[in-house]
Amino acid sequence: MTAPLKIGFLLYPNLTQLDLTGPAQVFAHMSGSQRHFVWKTMEAVPSDSGISLLPTDTFESCPDLDLLCIPGGPGQNALMQDAAVLGWLSRQGAQASWITSVCSGSLLLGAAGLLKGYRAASHWNYRQYLPAFGATIDEGRVVRDRNRITGGGITAGIDFALEVVATLRGQAEAEEIQLLLEYAPQPPFDCGRPELAEPQLVERVRQRLATSVHSMQGHAAKE
Amino acid sequence: MTAPLKIGFLLYPNLTQLDLTGPAQVFAHMSGSQRHFVWKTMEAVPSDSGISLLPTDTFESCPDLDLLCIPGGPGQNALMQDAAVLGWLSRQGAQASWITSVCSGSLLLGAAGLLKGYRAASHWNYRQYLPAFGATIDEGRVVRDRNRITGGGITAGIDFALEVVATLRGQAEAEEIQLLLEYAPQPPFDCGRPELAEPQLVERVRQRLATSVHSMQGHAAKE
Repeated sequence: MTAPLKIGFLLYPNLTQLDLTGPAQVFAHMSGSQRHFVWKTMEAVPSDSGISLLPTDTFESCPDLDLLCIPGGPGQNALMQDAAVLGWLSRQGAQASWITSVCSGSLLLGAAGLLKGYRAASHWNYRQYLPAFGATIDEGRVVRDRNRITGGGITAGIDFALEVVATLRGQAEAEEIQLLLEYAPQPPFDCGRPELAEPQLVERVRQRLATSVHSMQGHAAKE
Repeated sequence: MTAPLKIGFLLYPNLTQLDLTGPAQVFAHMSGSQRHFVWKTMEAVPSDSGISLLPTDTFESCPDLDLLCIPGGPGQNALMQDAAVLGWLSRQGAQASWITSVCSGSLLLGAAGLLKGYRAASHWNYRQYLPAFGATIDEGRVVRDRNRITGGGITAGIDFALEVVATLRGQAEAEEIQLLLEYAPQPPFDCGRPELAEPQLVERVRQRLATSVHSMQGHAAKE
């Protein structure tokens, strides 16, 4: 009997919960794996969607992880120079087999020094900050560079996680999970990437995201 | 100033969390709306993915909802004859403007008598039970019949919620949210619906889901 693959997600206040809950649903069906949801304390963590999520582990109680996964979200701005968070990422990153992120979570990996010299994905509105952390921007929806696997914005987490399952458990199991999740998407519009959208639409969305952008610019500049 | 649209999700132990968290992420960006996550108590509710979610309201404290949304999941079997749950669904359903579900959540709507004479979607492995509740099976990914909007299995919740936003707030806002969520999916395989998958693959997934199926058959037969 092999030990289960220990998958650990960073939780934090005001994370974009779908960055985490999409992959968590995929990994819930992955054979020989267990999931850890990790934060500084065991108290419920509010998300950006009005629902709070409960950690299963603290930084201290969490075991050594095989796969580290960092979601993005407005709340990450407060963590970009948080010694406890960056220290935990750095310690886990030094020993984990797989270091991964979804959305702007890649900027947190970057802040912890875990993307230097790697190609990485991020949410389209934030990937411009990757080079400040020594990473190379890759506009792919799921990007693998050696043992780094990073996903694009928010909903890319589902594609990301299925690719992880295919890589670690093979195509047959990934196909089973894709069918189980009835993942045959039918987006109502054809505007899910800025290259596909009218400039005015892109601008309206940039405005919606503006607070986070300014904040991230501030942090990237200090690196 | 118009009152915000009150969106209420049913929470329950062992729900399929992505049925809820996908739409919750979309609705978090919907103008003039507020979200309620409702269960019998305020205690954290474990999901099928190893993470627990915190209710914001109980059946008693929850206001009259404008949009009721019911996620599916293995835990729903225990609710198919639960008087408190069916009573709450029935009360809210009698006054809500929109009655909706994701995945096998439509069977819970059915059990509460809210789909009699309506076309509805469900997860592909469970939609066969819809007629036991007086509903007509529709194999669409998002199905609207008058004020009932129902989504197919699990990941269909994202398409469902974007369609709801388009219906209630117009195409421009739905497009903004789709781009914000970077929803330009790239499923790794072409097997997300049973019609697209090899029969052996479908059979393997049916086996994975077998416990829930048997349980639902039991309940449908008693109707």
